[in-house]
Amino acid sequence: MVELSREALHVSVSDPVSTSMNFLNEVAGRFPDAISLAAGRPFDEFHSAADVDKHLQAYLTHLRESGISDVQSRVLLTMYGRTNGHIGGLIARMLDVDEDIRVPDEAVMVTAGCQEAMVIALRGLCAGPGDVVLAAEPCYVGFTGAARILGIDVVPVPESPDGLRPSTVREVAAAVRAGGRTPKALYLVPNFANPSGVSLPVATRRALLDVAAEADLLILEDDPYGLFGLDDEPRPTLKSLDTDQRVIYLGSFAKSYFPGVRVGFLVADQPVVDAAGRRTVLAEELSTVKSMLTVNTSALSQAVVGGMLLDSGFSLRGANQAKIQFYRQNLRTLLAALERHFSGGPVRWNSPSGGFFVVVDVPVDASEELLEVSAREHGVLWTPMRFFYLGDGGSHAIRLSCSALEPAQVDEGVRRFAGFLASV
Amino acid sequence: MVELSREALHVSVSDPVSTSMNFLNEVAGRFPDAISLAAGRPFDEFHSAADVDKHLQAYLTHLRESGISDVQSRVLLTMYGRTNGHIGGLIARMLDVDEDIRVPDEAVMVTAGCQEAMVIALRGLCAGPGDVVLAAEPCYVGFTGAARILGIDVVPVPESPDGLRPSTVREVAAAVRAGGRTPKALYLVPNFANPSGVSLPVATRRALLDVAAEADLLILEDDPYGLFGLDDEPRPTLKSLDTDQRVIYLGSFAKSYFPGVRVGFLVADQPVVDAAGRRTVLAEELSTVKSMLTVNTSALSQAVVGGMLLDSGFSLRGANQAKIQFYRQNLRTLLAALERHFSGGPVRWNSPSGGFFVVVDVPVDASEELLEVSAREHGVLWTPMRFFYLGDGGSHAIRLSCSALEPAQVDEGVRRFAGFLASV
Repeated sequence: MVELSREALHVSVSDPVSTSMNFLNEVAGRFPDAISLAAGRPFDEFHSAADVDKHLQAYLTHLRESGISDVQSRVLLTMYGRTNGHIGGLIARMLDVDEDIRVPDEAVMVTAGCQEAMVIALRGLCAGPGDVVLAAEPCYVGFTGAARILGIDVVPVPESPDGLRPSTVREVAAAVRAGGRTPKALYLVPNFANPSGVSLPVATRRALLDVAAEADLLILEDDPYGLFGLDDEPRPTLKSLDTDQRVIYLGSFAKSYFPGVRVGFLVADQPVVDAAGRRTVLAEELSTVKSMLTVNTSALSQAVVGGMLLDSGFSLRGANQAKIQFYRQNLRTLLAALERHFSGGPVRWNSPSGGFFVVVDVPVDASEELLEVSAREHGVLWTPMRFFYLGDGGSHAIRLSCSALEPAQVDEGVRRFAGFLASV
Repeated sequence: MVELSREALHVSVSDPVSTSMNFLNEVAGRFPDAISLAAGRPFDEFHSAADVDKHLQAYLTHLRESGISDVQSRVLLTMYGRTNGHIGGLIARMLDVDEDIRVPDEAVMVTAGCQEAMVIALRGLCAGPGDVVLAAEPCYVGFTGAARILGIDVVPVPESPDGLRPSTVREVAAAVRAGGRTPKALYLVPNFANPSGVSLPVATRRALLDVAAEADLLILEDDPYGLFGLDDEPRPTLKSLDTDQRVIYLGSFAKSYFPGVRVGFLVADQPVVDAAGRRTVLAEELSTVKSMLTVNTSALSQAVVGGMLLDSGFSLRGANQAKIQFYRQNLRTLLAALERHFSGGPVRWNSPSGGFFVVVDVPVDASEELLEVSAREHGVLWTPMRFFYLGDGGSHAIRLSCSALEPAQVDEGVRRFAGFLASV
């Protein structure tokens, strides 16, 4: 009879981050009445199964109007199809309308969510054991997890309270090279980062592009929250400022549409040259990697997303006004409640200009044990910031999220959170 | 301006197999009138977009009848959901009805196609640099490609004309251990393998289970073609014969439903014990790996497959009678045409008892150059068997596929193929 030892399985099975996340889910399961200021998922009442059919029909109509026969459109929806997907052109148009990003259709690869886009980019770029990636720290656990699956080392670049500093990137890249390894890329979330909530000023974005050029780094720009600013101030993506094709842009529809559709994308317009001088584009080269991970992205999910893009006139910003207002109200509610309960006291927090997250610095060690106390005795859940650090770090900080709740719950959650902090 | 060198990208980007497959696609593109005895994809006229909606509705009805509220069912279809998927129970029931495989629901993980199932199983099982997998050779390129993405070595176990010999598995496993490495698992396709077409006798299946137990190997059983026998003779999967949970079963709906839905699954009911004595099931442990690859499988695609399973009374065998008859006729047509053109001559071929593929031994080097000649001058495409070998091997053999064509095209394809072989 087979019996496997958990310790003999790959490190990614039992890595500390997933253990932590499992712990969080497990605590949430044991205290179902606790308000979750931990869950960073989108609010779940914006979409229904009816949207799915509406958008699928819109896509089928579009195919018909584009002169694609019923036979071809059946093949597109049911067969394997192109590895890089069949809605790359629609996504490129959306990027042009919403983000001022202009790339050829063939630079877009449709992926099984943004998570797969990270895996593919990492796999393609890191070829040898000395190839590493830099990442702003605290860092989204999906990125470090993707790297761990592939055995790629992530070197943290500590964020300041204003976000990533270009000079720190320069220093870390130089130290990595001095240690005999090659930093291939820098991962960052420029807008309302998960978990820090911080956004980069435009001047910093430009300076990061300069440092990347100097240090011969690509930039992996992940932008799931860019739509959800507290104001309408434009926040240009690094990709839109990228004049020398240094940025690989990672996109998600999880927040701007819905997560269950599992469609994301990557934009990789970097020229690639082989020994014989043949030129291609990086997204095309990465299709081999995609084909060995998932062959291609659900043709059905792609069609539904394609229909949504058509219906929205290629503007997620336009189509998501209700969501944008909802998340603004939630974040304002969260910040106002923090002000009300903690103003003038020892507890400090940052003031993100958008997104789903706020970081609170607390005078106690924000441990898993304390989280359990908070859930059991105060009915409120939060995320220890230490989950987002590769080494030590984040021990006295907490991430609060306001995306999956109604405003009144956010308010009540912070009241409970204040009661919890007062008790420890 | 960035310019990347193709040679500096990861080896999986430019691995010889994908280069070969690209070459094949490129030749097919240049000679669109050539009949493709190369394409192993399913015939594309069995499904339409209407099926998709029908099955989605069937799933929604099922949820309603199971007492799941409209709110919960909306969340199920649009949100992130459980990493291992929401139709594992329906798949477990299908495995019971069709395959005599009885496993608990939580042993089933729904994946983004069978390709992702391979990646997840490989990643979870191979922890250290000395952990390798064995694979029957000639081998499906998706498996060797998945291993290459993860940097896992595949050690070939040469197939005999009757398929894998248990004694060879024993020898190769012992040689790997003698070389200081650990063989963690053996990959095989028991029914009508791609590319060899060969099926394993039941006694061989049992003997392979015994050898796996002796050599402390798990078995990765991939069974995409099992439905498509020339007769109704039962061919028990290794998983159904597996009394000590040695087999991880990899499943696909690409042939039994349609590829564009991108839903596959793995069955891993192996007990896992950690240092503290806590017991789980392997599929649950692998969910961390899944979450870092694609988070979860398109909820929408899962719902559509779930509806199909409900509609079919949990029997793919029952629901696929039209396909089964179609592929039988195609394979019979292919075998009869080979008999007609080559009987008594120097060209030999095998006689698979089902599936999509036949292997032809030819008296010439079946090279890419010759394939191009065949396409240009004779209007017929085929696959060099050397694509399916990790080292040398397969140089004088060709894979013919009959799955994506009408019977008359199969017939004409073989006529052209005979003309081609007579000319070289």
